[in-house]
Order: sequence, then structure tokens, then C-alpha cells
Amino acid sequence: MIGFSSNVGVMASLTNSEEQQAAFVLSKSWPQTQDSNKKWKGFGGFVLVHAGAGYHSESKAKEYKHVCKRACQKAVDQLKSGALAVEAVAAALVELEDSPFTNAGMGSNLNLSGEIECDASIMDGKSLHYGAVGAISGIKNPILVANRLLTEAQKGKLSAGRIPPCFLVGQGAQDWAVCHGIPPCPSEKMTTKFSLSAYKRNKRKMELAEKMDMGHNQAKRRRQSSGNENGSGCLDTVGAVVVDLEGNVAAAVSSGGLAMKHPGRVGQASHYGCGCWAENANDLISYSTAVSTSGCGEHLIRTMLARECSSAMQSEDAHQALLEAMQNKFISSPFLASEDRVLGGVIVLRCCRCVEAQPSQNIQGLLVEFLWSHTTESMCVGYMSAQDSKAKTHISRLPPGTVPGQSLAIEGGVCRLMNSSD
Amino acid sequence: MIGFSSNVGVMASLTNSEEQQAAFVLSKSWPQTQDSNKKWKGFGGFVLVHAGAGYHSESKAKEYKHVCKRACQKAVDQLKSGALAVEAVAAALVELEDSPFTNAGMGSNLNLSGEIECDASIMDGKSLHYGAVGAISGIKNPILVANRLLTEAQKGKLSAGRIPPCFLVGQGAQDWAVCHGIPPCPSEKMTTKFSLSAYKRNKRKMELAEKMDMGHNQAKRRRQSSGNENGSGCLDTVGAVVVDLEGNVAAAVSSGGLAMKHPGRVGQASHYGCGCWAENANDLISYSTAVSTSGCGEHLIRTMLARECSSAMQSEDAHQALLEAMQNKFISSPFLASEDRVLGGVIVLRCCRCVEAQPSQNIQGLLVEFLWSHTTESMCVGYMSAQDSKAKTHISRLPPGTVPGQSLAIEGGVCRLMNSSD
Repeated sequence: MIGFSSNVGVMASLTNSEEQQAAFVLSKSWPQTQDSNKKWKGFGGFVLVHAGAGYHSESKAKEYKHVCKRACQKAVDQLKSGALAVEAVAAALVELEDSPFTNAGMGSNLNLSGEIECDASIMDGKSLHYGAVGAISGIKNPILVANRLLTEAQKGKLSAGRIPPCFLVGQGAQDWAVCHGIPPCPSEKMTTKFSLSAYKRNKRKMELAEKMDMGHNQAKRRRQSSGNENGSGCLDTVGAVVVDLEGNVAAAVSSGGLAMKHPGRVGQASHYGCGCWAENANDLISYSTAVSTSGCGEHLIRTMLARECSSAMQSEDAHQALLEAMQNKFISSPFLASEDRVLGGVIVLRCCRCVEAQPSQNIQGLLVEFLWSHTTESMCVGYMSAQDSKAKTHISRLPPGTVPGQSLAIEGGVCRLMNSSD
Repeated sequence: MIGFSSNVGVMASLTNSEEQQAAFVLSKSWPQTQDSNKKWKGFGGFVLVHAGAGYHSESKAKEYKHVCKRACQKAVDQLKSGALAVEAVAAALVELEDSPFTNAGMGSNLNLSGEIECDASIMDGKSLHYGAVGAISGIKNPILVANRLLTEAQKGKLSAGRIPPCFLVGQGAQDWAVCHGIPPCPSEKMTTKFSLSAYKRNKRKMELAEKMDMGHNQAKRRRQSSGNENGSGCLDTVGAVVVDLEGNVAAAVSSGGLAMKHPGRVGQASHYGCGCWAENANDLISYSTAVSTSGCGEHLIRTMLARECSSAMQSEDAHQALLEAMQNKFISSPFLASEDRVLGGVIVLRCCRCVEAQPSQNIQGLLVEFLWSHTTESMCVGYMSAQDSKAKTHISRLPPGTVPGQSLAIEGGVCRLMNSSD
């Protein structure tokens, strides 16, 4: 077991995972040749998902855990059938989007006009391609459009030398999706009883707040009315990170965005470097890393949190690196100096090849370190390796008495994926 | 005069600028206190603009230079009247957008449906706030919407604690603009004779290419038809970087996007870290930097070129740093490994405080180093300090015989801005 130590007054705890006790030696130089890659071919891998950083009431905890469990299982099914990390991560996201409890796809937050507009993106650490949609309506699974953009871009140029898009928004994104065989879904089918009643409640609150603020000057009004709905409420964007047994990583994220957002508002889930990041190890970087974020989109955009966390993960100590990244690049970021509370969460995995300390000829594998951290009251995560019979789930909470947006929780674990060489 | 040396077979040349001969010593530790800031109060500054990296025919060179000249003048007028860098950069952009010759605002490229959809963003190095619009139609000056998003976000939260958006797209962006007093402009008024005839020509070419490719399999068709319209053609996105006499930097970018793009496609001009970047010096970074990019949006997004160039600018030798960034983080970027030609350009400025080598009590100033670099056939730039009577303009071209997308040109200059202390 690898122990995580805490500091600067934040909570740190350990999570058990399979294979933690095994002795291993890290092998940071990755095989680069085709031949040595062949050695590692095999089906399997590891998935970590989140159902959002925000607030998860005890009463709904069971539902959130269930959907995380199902999402992990979908990714593992894909991995076991030989799919690459990027396909497995998309499968996990579809399950997360389909849950009416998460703020993504079905059951997404409604915007100011009472409509659903979704953001989603996916990144493949192997090809380093990325696909994203923003403010898309009438599509049940926005992640499938993002994924299709990614795969279409990998095919090369369009007719007459046109460069294929990696990011589409609004009606154009919906039209492109339908053209590419992804069926439209009437918005009313994506609206749930819960999202509709939350919309009505929020609208009343907003109108009341605006009425109460009447008479104050604008600056005053704005300051005074801060700090409720988006405080650490329903920010439950979803996401996942996956590594397959070849060591390819992928990451994805999907969100209905902030409740009562302005139509056309695009959050971090569509933003390159902000919503998710995945990068295979190469000549220059030792670890493959994958990150998915959740929380207040504007905070996550302006701090480019997914990419920052990915870069930090090249340090020796993963836990310490993530702790410092969350503290210095998020909570205390100069980019958010004017914000009183900085709300977000990340799931992170990194991996490298390992061999046993006393190697038995045919056993080698991947060492996967996985972590989550959040400044919101809670974050719901699930994880599973292809060697596990079922996923583990957990609702991580800030330590009692700490202030959301100013403190953080960080937890994680280690898993070793085994494979036989030729 | 500071000499730029060339290497790795790329072109490097010198550009004369005011005040280059003056002896100075760099003072990299910026005054952080309010008192020492006060010393530097004064009106003035420096602006560098571009009318796009792409191909600028000799016949139209005069027009491009003219609009760059006017844009510089607008920024300098603002600076002289006491405006901050961010206001001056917006003024330059309005002028660049209003030209029917540039691919931004008026005269933007038409998309597949024959419509104009614009992207724009702006970043303030002082507050580190950012505002962006994507795929916006029916607004004459998209940069004004981006700028308004930035200023509204700086005011703090909206009613009921809602977080103000930093990025709006499509119809929602247009509606928000109109709500905030920016008048709509009928699309037909933004379409020029030139953009319409280019659209018709491109459409015919596309249809012909698709007809010719009939019978080939899809993969083959796509590869074979690469390399014309978007090769290094009309990518003439516009942008500007500004430093004011207080040492605040700002950057902005605006684009009509690739010709014949899919409706809803958003390019680098809206993308945080990709289209522009501005960051004042602080405790952690010695130089204030501002960057604006131009070229193929997808290439600029996936390499996050604006932010990469900004980070690189903290190295000792600005010219060498930009050369290496363009070579390693763009042309040879692992993120664009599958691309045969990598098309883009940047304008960059960095500055730090300087004092005279033999200081006369009341003369201190800012040392501004400014550069441009591109892998496209040409790039049109203009620059001016508030001490100049008029702007200098230049069309930078790749050396004859070099291949666009594989080689680069890099040029720049130095300017010292003077101010009297109290």
C-alpha cells in the first residue's frame, strides 16, 4: 500500500485497491518500438469516474453511487472486449449522461430560458486528438458527438482540403450530429421532474433576489446577493478517466452547465485543457496522465485545471503533486484572486510500466495511481479495474468545519494491472 | 540595437524601432507596492497588431498595411487619453474587424451555409479576466461583446449568486450582446462582394473535388484532396497586443473562421489560451507578456499556442525562446504529429521595467520587446508606440523556396517607453 501523507491542514485518506501490496519497481522509460509495444498487448485496464463535485445529499448518495458503479462496469466491459481507452471512456460517459440524477445529458440543469444546453469533450492520450461540443440541445448523449468529432478528425482532411472541426457549438453541432447518424432527442424527453422543479424554484429565488436588491446600486446589489445557488450546490458534471492494458489513457467530461446560466454559455466541459486532458507517456514525459474536472466552469476554465493537474502529475509524488496543484493553481490561483470561493474537483490517474522486484519472466504490468480532490462539499467517485468483479464507489466529503471553496479533500489509491508478455 | 540571431535554418531579420540605441539595464523585480506603482503613472504605451497569418498578395498589400496602421493609431489614441491596455487593444480590434479586407467582423469568411459566424476573445493581463464569443452572427464587432463579457465578469456575481459567463456562443451570445446595448447588424451588411464571390468559388471547388473523388474509398479521398483552400490561403484572422505605461498588458483576437467551415465550428479565436494570452508580471513571473495568434484554428487550439508562447517568453532571450516555441511546440508538436503542414502565426510582446545605465534621476521606463513569427506564406503586422507620429507596417514573408507549414519566419524589435517619475 502506498501511503498518502497530508499537510497544510487538508484531509487526506487512503483508499484500498487491488494489488496494492505487490512489490514493484517503476520502469519510467517506456518501450518506444513497435516490437516492445507488442509485448504488452492484452485486454483490460482501469477506470475512474465521477458524478460531480458539488453537494451530494445522504438521501441521494445511493443513486449517485449506483450510476458510478454502472459507468465503471460499462467501461470495463469495453476494455475486456478489446476496446481502447478512448472507447471505454465514452461508454462510461454515456451511462453517466443517461442517469436522470446527474447534471449531464438526461436531467441536465435548465438554463435561464428553461432549456437544456449541454457541453462535453473527450481526449485520446494516444493520438492526442480532442473533440468537443458546446451549448448543444436536443441530443441525448453529447459525449457521442464529441467522440464522433474526434474520430472524424483522425481520418484527415475533408473534401477540397478543408480541415475537420474539433469543436462545434449550438444548432450547428446538433445538425452535424444528426448528419453523422446520431439521432435527435426532443428536449422535453431530456427534462426531468426534478430539473423542472429546480428550475421553477431557482427562478423564484432569482426574481426575489432581484426584487430585494432593488434600490441598491448595481455594484452593491451584485456583491450582496452572492453565495447561494452556485455556492456548492448542483455542479454535478460527470467525467471519467481510463487506461487500457496497452497503457493508452483517455479522459472525458460532460455537463449540463450551471443552473440558470445564460443561453449560449459554454463551461469548462467543452474547453480544451479545462474539462479533461489525456496524454500518453512519450520521449519527453514519463507518466501517462488523464484528468477530468467538475465544478464551476468559469473557475475551471480560467485556471485551465485539467491541463495543470496533468502537468503536475509528472512529479515524483502523485499525491503531493495534486495537493500542490489544487492549492497553488486553483484555490490560490492568481487567475481567481477576486473570487471568495473557488469551487471544483478533479479525478486524476497516472500510470507507468512496472516490473516485479524479483521478476518472474512473464509477468509485467502497469502501475496505476488514481486520485480525486475537490474544494466542493462533496464529490462522488467510482473506480474499477478489469480484474475486479465490481466497482468501488465513494462519496468524498470535506472535513467537518472546513469551508467549501477554501479547503480541499484529497484521496486516492494504487492499482497494478497485470499482463503476460509473449 | 538588440540583434536577433537566426538558427536552425529559419529566417531572422531585424526591425528598427524607436529608442533602440538607448543604454538600459533591465530591472526584473517589479515594484509591487501601491506607492512604487504610483511613480509610473503616465499615459502612453505600445501596440502591435496583425491582419493575419496566411497569404497576402502584393496587390492587396497596401490595403492590409493601411488597416494595420489605422488600428495602431486607434490604440495609441486610447493610450494617450489615459485608457488602460485592455481598452486600447479593443479599440485596435474594432478597426481591424471593420475592414472588409480582413477575415473578421465585416467581410468575414462565409461558412458552408453561406453565413457569417465569428469568434473573438480578449484577455486583460492586469485582472487576468477573459471574455470570449464563438460562432456569433449578426454583430458587427464581436470583440465588443467579448470585451463586455470581460468587464461584466469583473463586476462580480449576478443576482442570486449566479456566476457571470466568460464564454458565450451562437444565438445566446447575440441575444446577450443586444441585451447589453450592442446593436445587431444584419448579416447581409457584413457580407462583402469579395467574401460572397470567394464563397461561390469555394463551393464550386468543393463540389468538383467531391465529384472527382467519387469512387475512391473515403480514407483515400480525404488524403488525396488535401492541400488547397486552407493550405495557406485566407486565414487572415486579426489580433493585437498592447502594453500601457503602467506596464499592464492586454491581448485580443477576432476571426471569421475558416472558409466553408461547418456551421457552429469554433476556432482558436474563442479558445482560452489558444487565441490570445495576457499576463502582467507578478511575484512569480518577471516579464509581462501578451500574445495573439492567427492561422488554422484547429492547429492553434490543439497546441494551445498563445499560452505556450507566453510561457516561453519568461526565458532570457526572447527571440530564441519564440523560435524554440514555434519549432518545438508548434511545427514539431506531438499534438500535430499527423499533420503534414502546420499553419499559424503569432505576435508577441513582453516587457519589463528598465532604468538608464547611468541614471538621470527622473527618467525611467519600460523595455518592450516585440516579435512576430509565422509558418504561413506571409503575415501582415503593424506597430506603434505612443511616442511615434505614425505606425510602421510590414508584410513578413517566408524565405523563397521554403515550404509553408514546415518552415518559419521570425522578426521583431525593441522599443523603450519613457516616463518621468514623481
